[in-house]
Amino acid sequence: MKSQEKAVEQVLFSRRASGLSTNPATGPSATAISFDSGHAFPSILPDLTQVASVALSKYRAETLQYAPRPGLPELRSWIAEYMRSDGVVNLSPEEVLVVNGAKHGLELVCRLLLDEGDSIVVTAPTYFTAIPIFKSFGVEFIEIQQDSEGLNVSELQHSLENRKQAGKRLPKFIYDVPDFHNPTGLTMSRDRREAIIELAKDYGLFIVEDSPYRKVRFEGESQPSLKALDDSNSTVLTLGTFSKLMAPGLRVGWIAARRDLLARIVQLKSDGGSCPLTQRLIIEFCGTGQLDNHIRRVQETYRVHRDRMVAAIRRDFPEAEFNVPHGGYYLWLTLPPDCDGDDLATRAAQENVILVPGSKFFTASSGHGIGQPFPKNHIRAAYSYASPEQIDEGVRRLARAYRSIA
Amino acid sequence: MKSQEKAVEQVLFSRRASGLSTNPATGPSATAISFDSGHAFPSILPDLTQVASVALSKYRAETLQYAPRPGLPELRSWIAEYMRSDGVVNLSPEEVLVVNGAKHGLELVCRLLLDEGDSIVVTAPTYFTAIPIFKSFGVEFIEIQQDSEGLNVSELQHSLENRKQAGKRLPKFIYDVPDFHNPTGLTMSRDRREAIIELAKDYGLFIVEDSPYRKVRFEGESQPSLKALDDSNSTVLTLGTFSKLMAPGLRVGWIAARRDLLARIVQLKSDGGSCPLTQRLIIEFCGTGQLDNHIRRVQETYRVHRDRMVAAIRRDFPEAEFNVPHGGYYLWLTLPPDCDGDDLATRAAQENVILVPGSKFFTASSGHGIGQPFPKNHIRAAYSYASPEQIDEGVRRLARAYRSIA
Repeated sequence: MKSQEKAVEQVLFSRRASGLSTNPATGPSATAISFDSGHAFPSILPDLTQVASVALSKYRAETLQYAPRPGLPELRSWIAEYMRSDGVVNLSPEEVLVVNGAKHGLELVCRLLLDEGDSIVVTAPTYFTAIPIFKSFGVEFIEIQQDSEGLNVSELQHSLENRKQAGKRLPKFIYDVPDFHNPTGLTMSRDRREAIIELAKDYGLFIVEDSPYRKVRFEGESQPSLKALDDSNSTVLTLGTFSKLMAPGLRVGWIAARRDLLARIVQLKSDGGSCPLTQRLIIEFCGTGQLDNHIRRVQETYRVHRDRMVAAIRRDFPEAEFNVPHGGYYLWLTLPPDCDGDDLATRAAQENVILVPGSKFFTASSGHGIGQPFPKNHIRAAYSYASPEQIDEGVRRLARAYRSIA
Repeated sequence: MKSQEKAVEQVLFSRRASGLSTNPATGPSATAISFDSGHAFPSILPDLTQVASVALSKYRAETLQYAPRPGLPELRSWIAEYMRSDGVVNLSPEEVLVVNGAKHGLELVCRLLLDEGDSIVVTAPTYFTAIPIFKSFGVEFIEIQQDSEGLNVSELQHSLENRKQAGKRLPKFIYDVPDFHNPTGLTMSRDRREAIIELAKDYGLFIVEDSPYRKVRFEGESQPSLKALDDSNSTVLTLGTFSKLMAPGLRVGWIAARRDLLARIVQLKSDGGSCPLTQRLIIEFCGTGQLDNHIRRVQETYRVHRDRMVAAIRRDFPEAEFNVPHGGYYLWLTLPPDCDGDDLATRAAQENVILVPGSKFFTASSGHGIGQPFPKNHIRAAYSYASPEQIDEGVRRLARAYRSIA
């Protein structure tokens, strides 16, 4: 770990461990403001005391024993119905596997699909936490650019065709976050979605659709999920999570995929079942109709946060350019060409505002040592965890940090 | 999956999914009795409603957010103190990593230590759920017998010396369950513990000590843990779990190991932190002094279960021989030489009593296809989950099954 990362980690560790974002001794202005993480805004975390009481009394013999490895049947049914209502026709509970969060799902998918020397397709930039997971399987990355419609499918086709002509092995899967992409906030257009599925079918690749922010939409209409467009239900494996729907701490996610693939993944999931208590909390919360209201609160809250950050950056840090995302947690800031995102993040941390430099989202970044050259002038600003007041103050600090190195 | 396993799995799946062991339509005598699993006796599961209420209100900002990847600091401190009070002097919280149950810990240890083509040492028989985890890393198994003092260290030394002479790579680690071994119930003697640590040091092997049942002792004195005897704190990695201390459904365990090893394991644990809610439940339960009482209840309950099963087998199934374990969950039955444990388990399932055939605990068993020949005349009978009345009835059914094939 580089020393800069370590410093950031330490600030975050102590703050999160205490559960406080404000140091009572020094007051809020001296405290680190977090624009770095996908943490939830604390006051939006749901009240689960009642459902926990039910889960730990009425369902004690279920919630405190080992659970079936594929997940509680009621939860698998609920997830299947949730996805069917989102356009994935005919999805059955047997095509849903409960896992310990989407990252666990991603790791299991990698264990299923990847062999030594394999390659995969990722966007450039891509979700930075996924990169070390992929790397632990020794993959080669094929990075494809995005435009306003999402992953550039023509560029991908060109790349695949070149590999084919050169007699190189084709990649095993395409990994993408089609809704409110992390970090760019882009949402893939319908045409692009149809094109990528057709391309994947033509070349015999899987698509791993990671869509944690799909319901965190502030305006506009959803596009059909990739899973919904995969008529044959053979190409797309979808990762879902309750982290953004309810709360990250539950550590419950799922994989929706073809039955034969899931049957093999269950064999790899040698864990005595995922936690039945948190699964039951979700069943009770969703089953009593509390999820829809909660999602509305999430959408309203984060829309206010996004608007506040957009306004603050336009006002106090106009040197940064960005697209306004229609949902999700993040602004992907493009800095003037001579501004290095790593330097800015380091300087900003000294000003007590924490952001993730853009380099982290490219497979070639110095910490990873592989892949293509990448632009250095980006930084990701999350508006989820900080309060509206902290967003104003944090952007002022960020602008001050920028001016001190510009 | 073989059809016999499938039938067993289906019976268990429907029973556990319902949370009931008795079918109200047909009454208890027609219901499957479970002697197969390490599930807890349902009425001993602790009441966690109060601690959950605290965890989800006072600690909501901690329990519903992402947790630090190494675990909540308070829990790591508690575990370190718990192990220090059990003889592991000087263990610090930084030498403890919280994981999603001991099996997750075992998998992480394998990811850290094993390379393609490595071998490991296991007892014959060994914990059957660990076998597929090891197998997924492509290891070669070196099976060593046990006697009444535990793993036969002389046999191991002979095997290691032979490999060395033959220029073969030495195994990476020794995996053992030194307290109330699963499945044999044996506890390693003090001399044997000291000898295995010295041997491991001489040959440069790690020891993976898996000790879920250590506190489930009904009589006699504990031997020092292998970790406690590892003066240099360099050889032994210990896997711990709250599954047998409190409840399996919490899915919280730990790895206690050298700091440099843990630092590398944390990098492999790409999971967004283990569930902070269940960690906080444990902190509150243990921190308010409820654990000691609970452990006493566990010991008393399972001693009664063990005594009941011992008496029932002596009375109704005297053909089966066994050592009486001083703790743990299991009796390891030795059947007459011509009785095949697989056949008996299949026949017993038809009589509605479920057991795990001995073959599952040998790496060479037909399901695994590697290793040495193994004795076929064993079956494991767990007394943890079934009630005393079910134990009587289950042993009668088992004896009936035996007589129908003998």
